[in-house]
Amino acid sequence: MPLSGFPEWLPRERIVEQHVLDVLRETFELHGFASIETRAVEPLDQLLRKGETDKEVYTLRRLQEEPAADASTSARPLGLHFDLTVPLARYVLENAGHLEFPFRRYQIQKAWRGERPQEGRYREFTQADVDVIGRDTLAFHHEVEVAQVMADVFARLPLPPVALQVNSRKLIEGYYRGVGVGRDGDDQQIAAVMRVVDKLDKVAPDLLVAMLQDEAGLTEPQAKACLSLTEVTSDGGDLAAQVHGLGVSHPLLDEGLDELVRVLQGTVGLHSEGFRVVADLRIARGLDYYTGTVYETRMQGFEHLGSVCSGGRYDALAGDGRTTYPGVGISLGVTRALAPLLSRGMLTASRATPTTVLVALPTDEGRGGCDDVAAALRGRGVPTEVSPNAAKYGKQIRYAERRGIPFVWFPQDDGSHEVRDIRTGEQVGVDLAAWVPPTEDLRPSVSGTVAPIVPA
Amino acid sequence: MPLSGFPEWLPRERIVEQHVLDVLRETFELHGFASIETRAVEPLDQLLRKGETDKEVYTLRRLQEEPAADASTSARPLGLHFDLTVPLARYVLENAGHLEFPFRRYQIQKAWRGERPQEGRYREFTQADVDVIGRDTLAFHHEVEVAQVMADVFARLPLPPVALQVNSRKLIEGYYRGVGVGRDGDDQQIAAVMRVVDKLDKVAPDLLVAMLQDEAGLTEPQAKACLSLTEVTSDGGDLAAQVHGLGVSHPLLDEGLDELVRVLQGTVGLHSEGFRVVADLRIARGLDYYTGTVYETRMQGFEHLGSVCSGGRYDALAGDGRTTYPGVGISLGVTRALAPLLSRGMLTASRATPTTVLVALPTDEGRGGCDDVAAALRGRGVPTEVSPNAAKYGKQIRYAERRGIPFVWFPQDDGSHEVRDIRTGEQVGVDLAAWVPPTEDLRPSVSGTVAPIVPA
Repeated sequence: MPLSGFPEWLPRERIVEQHVLDVLRETFELHGFASIETRAVEPLDQLLRKGETDKEVYTLRRLQEEPAADASTSARPLGLHFDLTVPLARYVLENAGHLEFPFRRYQIQKAWRGERPQEGRYREFTQADVDVIGRDTLAFHHEVEVAQVMADVFARLPLPPVALQVNSRKLIEGYYRGVGVGRDGDDQQIAAVMRVVDKLDKVAPDLLVAMLQDEAGLTEPQAKACLSLTEVTSDGGDLAAQVHGLGVSHPLLDEGLDELVRVLQGTVGLHSEGFRVVADLRIARGLDYYTGTVYETRMQGFEHLGSVCSGGRYDALAGDGRTTYPGVGISLGVTRALAPLLSRGMLTASRATPTTVLVALPTDEGRGGCDDVAAALRGRGVPTEVSPNAAKYGKQIRYAERRGIPFVWFPQDDGSHEVRDIRTGEQVGVDLAAWVPPTEDLRPSVSGTVAPIVPA
Repeated sequence: MPLSGFPEWLPRERIVEQHVLDVLRETFELHGFASIETRAVEPLDQLLRKGETDKEVYTLRRLQEEPAADASTSARPLGLHFDLTVPLARYVLENAGHLEFPFRRYQIQKAWRGERPQEGRYREFTQADVDVIGRDTLAFHHEVEVAQVMADVFARLPLPPVALQVNSRKLIEGYYRGVGVGRDGDDQQIAAVMRVVDKLDKVAPDLLVAMLQDEAGLTEPQAKACLSLTEVTSDGGDLAAQVHGLGVSHPLLDEGLDELVRVLQGTVGLHSEGFRVVADLRIARGLDYYTGTVYETRMQGFEHLGSVCSGGRYDALAGDGRTTYPGVGISLGVTRALAPLLSRGMLTASRATPTTVLVALPTDEGRGGCDDVAAALRGRGVPTEVSPNAAKYGKQIRYAERRGIPFVWFPQDDGSHEVRDIRTGEQVGVDLAAWVPPTEDLRPSVSGTVAPIVPA
């Protein structure tokens, strides 16, 4: 029985998912990121440190364990990780002496959250994270770099058009300070404003202005100024002009604006029909957690999923008292982005099996010879299986057709060989020692109803 | 803090694991097996059906869930899967209408068992399973096939020499019946004998003979005859002669012997210095669960790990009342086999990062140009990163050295380019539009203190 929130794929859908995971891995490695995996479990107290997510954590218990042991110090209670950032922080602290910094790692793994399932939100899901972690310091240019890496990923994936939205925590905070919020170092007021602005998706602008006054203690002009900032979007050179046009100035605002312009400039060459980077000053992404650039991503036609690829710069991923580890990272929600496309048939594989060639079996006694043919083809990298039985050739061809196997191989009585392309019905004599299929038939191909996005 | 039983790898070790997983996937796909993944959780009642493992199951609970809800019908209690066979059975039943049979699937995933950790036994571990599942019937030759697939896997992996040990449940049962055990269809007595024989690793032969009399109700001659069978091993043509020499006959014994001979014959061409298949009539592998060929695998020098690759033929993986799904499968314990080799340094990667080329940065302002160089190299499939800072070239070279990056790229002031092989110190002028590294430097290489095993 299927479990709500735990999606599973049929073999043909899994081939699509494998293709996406292959592209992610290949792209991350081309950019020099090393793979790590972390255990699925973390001590529960580590998982709950970040707060807010406590409702969603799955806790673990061994079936035969005494319930009392859960609370004892000897057996620290464990939970399944709900993201790959908490485990990364623990891994970096634990292994700092064995890692080179900046530490460039990617991590593609499942995570679990016990929330109510809906489209785009699952109880088990795959994330693909890429982060750069520094020791004590981390240069700004890595904030441009992770956006470039994800641009490269999107250029290689057959997804609907996506927009990577960027904002800067520095720009926002500088602007707020420029309009007089958070005077005398009142960081609480800054955080309060950010929490209210984060609700912009759910409440009307008028109400937001009222809430900023009620909940964050702003004056009406301050509240309206904060609202104005959220209206700025730009994918080009007018970002600075738009922000300056709001008439607010503060050194931190200038610094954040400069950085955001550099992110746009560093990715403008990667724009295509299916991908663009846009500064959107309303995106919030837990701005009180991040300290620099923040990223979100919307997939066209699937805006209801929310952001499918998110992250940002954080100045203290982890710390051990002596050393801090600043980082910047971005995470693609693989299941969130793929599941809706798979369920709509918008992404599909050309066949449900890796097999390229089915070796037809003339008689049961001929299996040894057919095994030899298969071994020869596999030796040249051609995925091959031998027919499960010596049924009439018509039935064996239909076996291949049902699976989408493109070629059926017929050993002939005289020791020669013929290959039939079952899509055209064409059957020709071939040399066992030399034949290979066209490269495009060697692996199942993946295609979308949306055209693959190729950078312009 | 590391958790006992939850192994994690450093980036260089992870590259070894990735290589092994890549070989597994590539080999399974070359043999025409399709990938599936199943969710990590199953309803607890499904996990406990097989019995015996109940002590080892991790149960899950949402942190905020009322404990009472666990027992209610609305929220069926869940546990983490402890193998990939129980999930496969459920997946096949659930999706039978969408699968083609025989269903050829591989599955490489983590599983969890709450047992006491020790070398070769972990609480979180990766399994690689390959199975062929039939609908109502499944031809014997697939029992030869899965042994061939695993032989191919071992031929491609840099492991110590392994012996794949095979036995036949039919041979054993036929032999027992031939000596008069289980008369009048007394299957209980057959099962009792198998349970006792399974303890051969732990008890002396004399004691086993006594136990067979006490616990399974055998006569002393019957018990001694059962012991004699366990002493038969053969990797060649004398298997039948050895078994016949025991002077027992039964139709089921003949059938099982014939099948076992066919497994040996079907794999004899795959023997090499590092791999052989041997009939070993003492291996038990839960014989009362399997119904045909059974497989175990010992790794030379690591016999204390037990079997690293096991499986067998089962006549009823799953059934829905109308249809049964017989199958045969074999499962490599990836973590069990790799962890002891990694911890001893017996398997290592040539570098700790996928990066092949570090582009040296002349000045901070030059980053854009270096990004272009990196993009050009990546476009030809060369993993490349740009130096994190514009330190003196000596420092940048040492950055590459510490990571094992083999090449450092130096853009020249005049627009030309030079590449330095940091292993030889040789630095030469190159063409950005054409240069590629030697193929063997394109990916980290994995090597063992034992030589890679190549089939003879």
